Amino acid sequence: MSTAFDFTSLFPSGLPPAAARWNGRVKFDFTGGNNDADSVPVEALIAAATAVIKREGRTLSTYGLDSGPQGYLRLREFLAGKLKAAAGMNCAADDILITSGSLQGLDLVNRTLLESGDTVIIEEDCYQGSINRLTKLGVTPIGVPLDGDGMRMDILANVLDDLKQKGKRAKYIYTIPTVQNPTATVMPVARRQEMLRLASAHGVAIFEDDCYADLTWSGERPPAIYALSDRANVIHIGSFSKSIAPALRVGFIVAPWDAMARMLALKTDGGSGALEQMVLAEFCAGNFAKHVPTLRRALRAKLETLTESLKQNFGGAVKFDDPQGGIFLWVTLPENVDTMKLYQSALAAGVAINPGPEWSVNKTRAKNRLRLCFASPSHEEISQGVATLAEVCRRDFGVAAK
Amino acid sequence: MSTAFDFTSLFPSGLPPAAARWNGRVKFDFTGGNNDADSVPVEALIAAATAVIKREGRTLSTYGLDSGPQGYLRLREFLAGKLKAAAGMNCAADDILITSGSLQGLDLVNRTLLESGDTVIIEEDCYQGSINRLTKLGVTPIGVPLDGDGMRMDILANVLDDLKQKGKRAKYIYTIPTVQNPTATVMPVARRQEMLRLASAHGVAIFEDDCYADLTWSGERPPAIYALSDRANVIHIGSFSKSIAPALRVGFIVAPWDAMARMLALKTDGGSGALEQMVLAEFCAGNFAKHVPTLRRALRAKLETLTESLKQNFGGAVKFDDPQGGIFLWVTLPENVDTMKLYQSALAAGVAINPGPEWSVNKTRAKNRLRLCFASPSHEEISQGVATLAEVCRRDFGVAAK
Repeated sequence: MSTAFDFTSLFPSGLPPAAARWNGRVKFDFTGGNNDADSVPVEALIAAATAVIKREGRTLSTYGLDSGPQGYLRLREFLAGKLKAAAGMNCAADDILITSGSLQGLDLVNRTLLESGDTVIIEEDCYQGSINRLTKLGVTPIGVPLDGDGMRMDILANVLDDLKQKGKRAKYIYTIPTVQNPTATVMPVARRQEMLRLASAHGVAIFEDDCYADLTWSGERPPAIYALSDRANVIHIGSFSKSIAPALRVGFIVAPWDAMARMLALKTDGGSGALEQMVLAEFCAGNFAKHVPTLRRALRAKLETLTESLKQNFGGAVKFDDPQGGIFLWVTLPENVDTMKLYQSALAAGVAINPGPEWSVNKTRAKNRLRLCFASPSHEEISQGVATLAEVCRRDFGVAAK
Repeated sequence: MSTAFDFTSLFPSGLPPAAARWNGRVKFDFTGGNNDADSVPVEALIAAATAVIKREGRTLSTYGLDSGPQGYLRLREFLAGKLKAAAGMNCAADDILITSGSLQGLDLVNRTLLESGDTVIIEEDCYQGSINRLTKLGVTPIGVPLDGDGMRMDILANVLDDLKQKGKRAKYIYTIPTVQNPTATVMPVARRQEMLRLASAHGVAIFEDDCYADLTWSGERPPAIYALSDRANVIHIGSFSKSIAPALRVGFIVAPWDAMARMLALKTDGGSGALEQMVLAEFCAGNFAKHVPTLRRALRAKLETLTESLKQNFGGAVKFDDPQGGIFLWVTLPENVDTMKLYQSALAAGVAINPGPEWSVNKTRAKNRLRLCFASPSHEEISQGVATLAEVCRRDFGVAAK
């Protein structure tokens, strides 16, 4: 073979670093939005796939099926009903755009509203994927600290006032109000109303990410911020990744038409995967309401295994608030622990964690924090993984002394 | 309700125009990569979905299944075998990245190699989606005319020399060598080798888009340009949209690792839809080789209906070369016909066509050309639609006089 062509000579500036080759899953994996394998509704998905392919399979010959570019109509109709019943939202199928996961939702909303140099307001501890997307766009995220009820409104008011004094306006307030990532807090109604009042007073939009909202332990949730607005100033996104399965890449955006029309123009992907939309719609119509409570119970049982394991292995060296739902626990270790370093040594021992600084815009405060996802590992893997993590912590930081 | 929030005040500059609301499909639709509904292998897809969900459904709980970020391993293994057998390509599963349709493939390759101000070389008459993507990126596409054997190598040589004299280097030569869109030509082996020679001499990469390559009438095809290269200077993309169904958004990229590693870093979508990948892999293993010839025969029969209808209704006013495969016909009308105007009046009469200037970088030469896609409309719709189109042409341009 002649000398191989050098593709690197063609790369534009600003390209992200090369990805590493995948080496398989880590033995004890407490990262990522992976879910409980035993809770995947296999038989019902087969029944749904069989029924919907038999009835409508021939429509796969057309981009967008018979539903057009906003996505499979029966799935949008299911969502309109579910969002009304669960979250109090008045939206029609035509207000909904099906996306390839809520990650595409994040991208479409950001590309529609943001450009380099913009400012947005987010929860200080926040989903890494959202923080990274803002950074790549050259957008400055201002973090607002959280308490047990989510984003603090007193500090949000100060941030908005500060920006006003500087002659700046944030493009949006990004919030995960219902099972916040990573704190797992649920923002009460009064605070949602206060956020709407502040946003209106400052002419700022709200970007509500509700992708964990189906997973509150109680099965109940406050109305969506979208539902409480009387000014149509909220863009709402959600997902089936957490309630059914993440490898099904199906999420959605609910937005006023003037914003939706621009997102549609940016969505040049020939539509999101139709088979997944069809199977989900068919499955959800008859099974969603039954499936989710079963999943919640399985998740809560795994959370109990995790918190028990943490108490047994770390004793008083570990602190966390009780999550109100979801698939992750936001953990604080003693101040001398640097979770960026812990991440490396734990990985070498077969345990993957999310280090706090990657899930916060306050890197200093998050130094000794970590996010532990508990939905995917088995009960046994949770116990063994936490024990291994504690050994690494003892060895490297002298904490969790027995 | 209070005054609605004005999202338009947040839009950055350079956003594409708002999309129009979807109003359903046009009665006689000769546009888009839609396929033959009767050829969708419904029963075999049901069997594949049932088998694969039963066997591996629980892996849907994990992003990337058990296969990692490059896509479902069994689908990549099927592709490696198929690309070897059909296109002579030596590539392993690890050289393949599954994408959400070949459109995501276009985006990932472009984002990895291009920036504003760059120059690329393309076929003069070319897929609209590829032209539009380059325009949006601020990249200049230089068109090379085609003849019955695809892109002309004598003109390509001149273009490369011209660029060299100006001290410029094109980033890549983009080509659809096997059933070119829209001309449906197939580039012979000797010309592929000449393209490789020229590309090497000028240090230019080749971007080979093979998404129609399964649909040659003969069932045979020349080796892929990727297969003929001894310098690993070709990035190859393909799709299942044309061979199975377009609403299944599954395509793929074959690329050297140094380029692949950057594309993977840019693919921040949590993976492409896993259920579609699983069902396709299961279906293809047992059915692809049988399915595609059946589909080809159905498509060729529709092409015959189309060419017969054109001859009957337009007589000597219409010219076209016999396509060597695919789903579209590139038609030339008399010089006084402006297909951008014809597009509007035909649409008003219920007939959708692709006007030539949207499928060419030579807008003047393509003024009286149009692309007619024949896979999706029924035989009866093809006949009626062509008759209606001819009526509009007679009325507005005085051509196809009876």
